[in-house]
Amino acid sequence: MTDTVNHQVLLVEKPTGKLGPEHFKLSEGQIPEPKDGEALLRVRYISLDAANRAWMHGATYRAAVEANTVMAGGGIAEVVSSKSPALKPGDIVFGDTGWQNYAAVPAKHLNKMPSMEPMTHLLSVYGIAGLTAYFGLLDVGKPKAGETVVVSAAAGSVGSIVGQIAKIKGCRVIGIAGGKDKCDWLTGELGFDAAVDYKDGAVFKALKAAAPGGIDVYFDNVGGDILEACLAQMNLNGRIACCGAISQYDGAPSATGPRGVPGLIVVKRLIMQGFIVMDYMNQREKALADLQSWVAAGKLKVQEDVIDGLENTPQALIGLLAGENRGKRMVKV
Amino acid sequence: MTDTVNHQVLLVEKPTGKLGPEHFKLSEGQIPEPKDGEALLRVRYISLDAANRAWMHGATYRAAVEANTVMAGGGIAEVVSSKSPALKPGDIVFGDTGWQNYAAVPAKHLNKMPSMEPMTHLLSVYGIAGLTAYFGLLDVGKPKAGETVVVSAAAGSVGSIVGQIAKIKGCRVIGIAGGKDKCDWLTGELGFDAAVDYKDGAVFKALKAAAPGGIDVYFDNVGGDILEACLAQMNLNGRIACCGAISQYDGAPSATGPRGVPGLIVVKRLIMQGFIVMDYMNQREKALADLQSWVAAGKLKVQEDVIDGLENTPQALIGLLAGENRGKRMVKV
Repeated sequence: MTDTVNHQVLLVEKPTGKLGPEHFKLSEGQIPEPKDGEALLRVRYISLDAANRAWMHGATYRAAVEANTVMAGGGIAEVVSSKSPALKPGDIVFGDTGWQNYAAVPAKHLNKMPSMEPMTHLLSVYGIAGLTAYFGLLDVGKPKAGETVVVSAAAGSVGSIVGQIAKIKGCRVIGIAGGKDKCDWLTGELGFDAAVDYKDGAVFKALKAAAPGGIDVYFDNVGGDILEACLAQMNLNGRIACCGAISQYDGAPSATGPRGVPGLIVVKRLIMQGFIVMDYMNQREKALADLQSWVAAGKLKVQEDVIDGLENTPQALIGLLAGENRGKRMVKV
Repeated sequence: MTDTVNHQVLLVEKPTGKLGPEHFKLSEGQIPEPKDGEALLRVRYISLDAANRAWMHGATYRAAVEANTVMAGGGIAEVVSSKSPALKPGDIVFGDTGWQNYAAVPAKHLNKMPSMEPMTHLLSVYGIAGLTAYFGLLDVGKPKAGETVVVSAAAGSVGSIVGQIAKIKGCRVIGIAGGKDKCDWLTGELGFDAAVDYKDGAVFKALKAAAPGGIDVYFDNVGGDILEACLAQMNLNGRIACCGAISQYDGAPSATGPRGVPGLIVVKRLIMQGFIVMDYMNQREKALADLQSWVAAGKLKVQEDVIDGLENTPQALIGLLAGENRGKRMVKV
């Protein structure tokens, strides 16, 4: 270890409206000394997720992030030194490292990762994104062959995997994404049956044309108007897997919810179910085995969007919230 | 059969706003001749349900009701004559008889009922109301002993049974109802642990005081603001059984849905599930056996609100939508 300072990105202020560069500040801190039970980590890749923004609103499934502290975020890191018997120098781990070069983290909050090339796959297909897609679609959405599956934020890290798994399971798959390029990529490279460009006019109509037989499973990453449009087109006994609400994250909380709740839920006997991937960690091995076999067989394509340099992390998140990424976005530190 | 005319109530116009007496008209028709496969019925009791109003908006789980026809509605009737081998004169049946003295209905659309005293129980605790409460609470809500169950429209036909079954299952039960009298009845006569009067100020606060440990199961009969208030107080892994949306029925459809959808559903891993009692009819015998044993043991009290005379059916429905009934409302023809 030759570094002498710890470059960091601080959240200086919690945004009330749209997130901007003014909410962050580059800073330098000391490289921390690990305490008993902790490991000192050198951060290699920082994961960018829409959830990062949600944490700024307040407690979600984790504590809220606080102003004037290092911005929270998951990352892949290498153990530099360890005061825990569970980890040794050179181990690769995943955990909440924060947006910085070095972090001292209790070993019990870290997940040891296999060594893998490329290492970035630990954040994409074999990381939270891949597992979220796997469990959310299969355990919550429960698609059957021949059914129609719709996924929003379909070109994103989770959505792009959801759609491909649904194809593997024999479903008809429609992705909702922003822009013609992303839509072409979904139907071309990823093999989706159809794509709806939400920036190109009315989602409701385009969805109706793409799914004339209605929707059996909707994997919702966005909430808001798109959830409303899907709700109205669900089939009897349809399932909505609620994974996130990107449309609600970057700004003030929405003053209303989607029309059709609860009316359409009753009439169509829908199940709308939220889930958090952390609840499935005891079933992780089975999921990873499936994901690996699909990647090896060429049925599941991995798309990553790697941005270089810790100093670019704020802009990388701002851009992600604006939908500029394709596949899993991360920053190489 | 000595009658020579068939007294009927027609829906003359589909209401766009609040339902009023002007939407109905008394009329006289002929006593119909049953065709092959049909039975001629003399209607004994007409069931009044919030769903009657929902049918006027359009197709729900059944076809929409049409203007200038006999108002649709379920009822208990006696077979006068039959052109079906499945039924014989004197049999008691439940079916969509409409608001009239006599109806000719295909036998395959009728459910033969046991003979019972009082016959009204076939519309309340052993009818749609009781079965809806039973399956919605137990199969969808899945309450465990010690959990907190909240039910809205708690003094109504379904809600009053939901709360009592939840007590039988060892839950802490809170009812939401309109007015002090109903609330006192819930906590006194029916043994609810607490009641919240939605006419007496902020439901959110009152609910928080009544359920300081949060809500595990919410049985939703009303939708709207009360659903929103409950959503915000659900515990992790809570279940919302969506039975109906009375607050949305009598007027124009709501322009918005409840806040917290989908955000709170994700963060709290909630399941929100709609159901229709008709889907459970193959499990009816087991439910009826349980309901009968609870009634016999005095654990489940049956409350009925019987109004006399076919001509009073419109006002009985209008009043039900305004929440004036306690327990199961029906009209004795």
